[in-house]
Amino acid sequence: MLTLDDAVALSFWYGGPRLKVLERLRCGEPDQTLESVIDAAADTPTPAALPGQLRRRAASALASAGRLGIAAVPWGDASYPALLAPIPDPPLVLWMRGDAAAFDQPSVAIVGSRAATAYGLEAASRLAGDLAAAGAIVVSGLARGVDSAAHRGALAAGGRTAAVLGSGVDVVYPPEHGGLCEAVAVSGVVLSEWRPGTAPRAFHFPARNRIISGLSLAVVVVEAAEKSGSLITAGCALEQGRAVMAVPGNILSGRHRGCHALIRDGAAVVESAEDVLAELRSSSLRPAARMDQAPALSDPLLSCLHPGESYDVESLGRETGLTAGQLLAKLLGLELQGVVRRVDGGRFVRAGRTC
Amino acid sequence: MLTLDDAVALSFWYGGPRLKVLERLRCGEPDQTLESVIDAAADTPTPAALPGQLRRRAASALASAGRLGIAAVPWGDASYPALLAPIPDPPLVLWMRGDAAAFDQPSVAIVGSRAATAYGLEAASRLAGDLAAAGAIVVSGLARGVDSAAHRGALAAGGRTAAVLGSGVDVVYPPEHGGLCEAVAVSGVVLSEWRPGTAPRAFHFPARNRIISGLSLAVVVVEAAEKSGSLITAGCALEQGRAVMAVPGNILSGRHRGCHALIRDGAAVVESAEDVLAELRSSSLRPAARMDQAPALSDPLLSCLHPGESYDVESLGRETGLTAGQLLAKLLGLELQGVVRRVDGGRFVRAGRTC
Repeated sequence: MLTLDDAVALSFWYGGPRLKVLERLRCGEPDQTLESVIDAAADTPTPAALPGQLRRRAASALASAGRLGIAAVPWGDASYPALLAPIPDPPLVLWMRGDAAAFDQPSVAIVGSRAATAYGLEAASRLAGDLAAAGAIVVSGLARGVDSAAHRGALAAGGRTAAVLGSGVDVVYPPEHGGLCEAVAVSGVVLSEWRPGTAPRAFHFPARNRIISGLSLAVVVVEAAEKSGSLITAGCALEQGRAVMAVPGNILSGRHRGCHALIRDGAAVVESAEDVLAELRSSSLRPAARMDQAPALSDPLLSCLHPGESYDVESLGRETGLTAGQLLAKLLGLELQGVVRRVDGGRFVRAGRTC
Repeated sequence: MLTLDDAVALSFWYGGPRLKVLERLRCGEPDQTLESVIDAAADTPTPAALPGQLRRRAASALASAGRLGIAAVPWGDASYPALLAPIPDPPLVLWMRGDAAAFDQPSVAIVGSRAATAYGLEAASRLAGDLAAAGAIVVSGLARGVDSAAHRGALAAGGRTAAVLGSGVDVVYPPEHGGLCEAVAVSGVVLSEWRPGTAPRAFHFPARNRIISGLSLAVVVVEAAEKSGSLITAGCALEQGRAVMAVPGNILSGRHRGCHALIRDGAAVVESAEDVLAELRSSSLRPAARMDQAPALSDPLLSCLHPGESYDVESLGRETGLTAGQLLAKLLGLELQGVVRRVDGGRFVRAGRTC
C-alpha cells in the first residue's frame, strides 16, 4: 500500500503504463513505494529524477487541495468507492469534495442528452427524485440537460447525489452550474480523477464516463440519440458488469434512437424508479463499500429489526437516532443484500437470509 | 370440401362445437355435406330439421349479400386468406367487400388505443404509410384512434389496407367512419366473420382481434395502456406464431405501459417501417396466399428479372404492365420469400435463392 503522497505522485506519471501500474498495486505487495512501482511497471528505464519531480507536484497539489477542502482518496484506501475499485481502469486517485461515505448507499447513474427536451428533463428529474427518496444516491456528470436534471431531482427529493467532473472539482463546467455543484457537495459528493485546478478538456469527458458507470450498480440512459456520449457510459457499464437500463420515448423525433437501440440490445426498459430497484434486486451485484463487508449483527439498525416484526421509518428513527434519509439509504442497501424486505405500507421486515 | 351454401349454413350453427367442426373440415374428406359434418361433430343428436333451418338462413344471407355486393368466402376456398386458414379457430366464412386478393401482398396489422394522443395517431399513420408504400397491406379494426389513423395513413400513401369489423361489413361502427370504410373497400378490403346486417356487439370485438392478427405476418401495437384491448390482439398473434412488435413512447403519461410491457416480454421495438420489414425478413413466416404456392418461373415479373441485373420499378412497370403499387406489393412478397433483394436507390435484383 502506497502512502497518499506516493499515490498522488504516481497518478501524475502521465506517460506511465497505467495498466501495469494498476497490476502492481493490485498484487498488494506490502511496503510499495513510488520508486518500486515505477521500476516494476516501466517498460524502459526512467530518469532518476522522475520520482522527485512527481513527489514535488503531488506535494503542491495536495497542499492546494487541502486549502480548498478537497480530499484525495487513493486506490486501495478504505474510503475509495468499493464499486469503482475493481473496474479495469480505475483512477489511481479520486479528488473529492463532500462526503466520500455517500457511496455506502446503493448508487444509480442517470445520464443522457445535454440538449434534452422537456420530456427528457422531467423523466430524469422524476426518476432521480424517486430513486433518491427510496434511499439510492444518484450519480451523474453535472452536464447540461439530463445530468443536471438528475442531480436537481435527487436534491429536490431531499436525497443525495454525486457529480463526476471532467475537470478539477474546483473548476465548474458548464459555468452556470456553480450553484448546483455547491448543492451537490453539501449533502453528497463532487469528484474527479483530475487534480484541482484542471480545466475541462474534451478528452476528459469520455474517460470520465467510465467513472460514472464504475461508481454505480446500474446506469439509466435518458433521451440518447444515435451517437450520444451517454452510449459510451452504457458501453463502460456493460464492460464493468453493471446493469444498463434505458428510458423509451417518442419515435418521431429521433431523439431516443440511442435508448431504443440499447433496449433492442437487451437493456431493461425503465418507466419508473421501481423498475430500476427491481433490476437491482434481481442483479447479482451488491451495493458497495463498507456495506459489502457484511452487515454485522451488531449493526444498530439490524439489531432493532426483530424477525417476524415490521417497522416503519419513523419508529426506526426513534430507536437508532438516524435521520429518515440515512435510514432509507441503509434500508435500501440491506434490502439489496437480501437482509431486509420492504412490505406494504412503507414498512420493513428482517428477511429470511441472515448474516 | 363443402359447397358455399353448406359452409355458410354451417357458420350459422351457433350452438355447434366449432373446434370439432373445424377438425372435420380440416381432415379434408371429399363429398362433405352440411349433414355429414354436423353428424360427425355433434356431441348429442341434433334435430332433423336443423340442416334445413341453417340452409334457409344461409340462402337468405347469401341473397342479401349478393344484392349488396358482398362476397362470402368459406374456409378452404382458394380466396380464403392463406395466413388466416391455419390459426386455431379461423372463421368458417369471411364476408368481404373489396378485393380478397389484397392478402396476396405481405400484411402487417397496426392496432392501438381508441383514445390515442396526437403522437400515437401520427406514429400509426406514418408507419402505415411507409409500410403501404413499401408494398405491404395494413390490417386494422376501423376503430377510433390508432386503427383509423393506420387505415388513413396507408390510403394517403396510395397503398392498400384491410379493415376487420366486429359487425357485418355493411354496418359501419363507429358511424363516423363511413367514408373511411368506403375508401378502404375501394382499393383494399373490408371483412367480417359476422353476416351482413349484424350489429356491433361488445363480445364481437375481442373475437375479431384474432382475425386481425391471423391475417397478418406481424402485429404492431401503438400506444397501448396497461389494459388495452390491443394486448388481446398481441396475445392472439403470439398464439398464432406471428411477430409482435411495439412502438415505445413517453413514460410519464402511462399511456404506453402496455407497449413497454410487450417490449419487456420480447416484442421488437418499432421506430420505423424499416424495423417492421427487417423483422419480417428475419422471420420464418412467409407471405400469404397464392404467393405461397411458389412463385413460378413463368411469373411475368420474375421472368423480367435476370440474375445479376438491377431494375427500378418504372422499367419493370413498362415490361410487365403492372402499376407501381402492384409491383411494390409483389416485389415485397418476393423479397420476403428470399427470391428478390432490394438494393440501393430503390432498385431490385434477383436473389441467390431460385425456385
